[in-house]
Amino acid sequence: MRIVLVQVRVRPDAVAAFVEASRANAAASLREPGVARFDIVQQADDPTRFVLVEVYRDDEAPARHKATLHYAAWRDAVAPMMAEPRTGVAYTAAAPDLSGWA
Amino acid sequence: MRIVLVQVRVRPDAVAAFVEASRANAAASLREPGVARFDIVQQADDPTRFVLVEVYRDDEAPARHKATLHYAAWRDAVAPMMAEPRTGVAYTAAAPDLSGWA
Repeated sequence: MRIVLVQVRVRPDAVAAFVEASRANAAASLREPGVARFDIVQQADDPTRFVLVEVYRDDEAPARHKATLHYAAWRDAVAPMMAEPRTGVAYTAAAPDLSGWA
Repeated sequence: MRIVLVQVRVRPDAVAAFVEASRANAAASLREPGVARFDIVQQADDPTRFVLVEVYRDDEAPARHKATLHYAAWRDAVAPMMAEPRTGVAYTAAAPDLSGWA
């Protein structure tokens, strides 16, 4: 299991468009066999800040995700919306065990 | 829906004890009606860093969680394990919609 948390800050005028583009990407990503979850959360006290909570079934799944057409479409669509570069950090699951994630 | 991401850095000699205490707390927390998920992820390139991914069904559930005996036991058990103070940030769900979280 491989979890990636991506910190995103978007331009204030791009919040709604970012949510729309990211929901489409999340829905398509959930159809990838290697993707267990693809959640988007929005900071309660700053709606321009988001975290993508990406849960992959194996270590190679993130690279496969980045090779998809829907990822490329999302990446290009949101590029002008970014207020700063995105940062991603990779994690392993400490709890629950693997069966709890899928 | 209310999501809280808690950033944790533990002392290097406390990693295993932190995981054990936090798994027990996660299991007990998942029995709270207001808790939809309580995941613990460990940073891939720095095993002393964790994120608690806490997903609550409503805005009051985090406070109810902090009033439980298992939370108090965890808080006290891990206090000497912390390398720095924990930081928590609250989020709302941008995707999937509520039905996808529960």
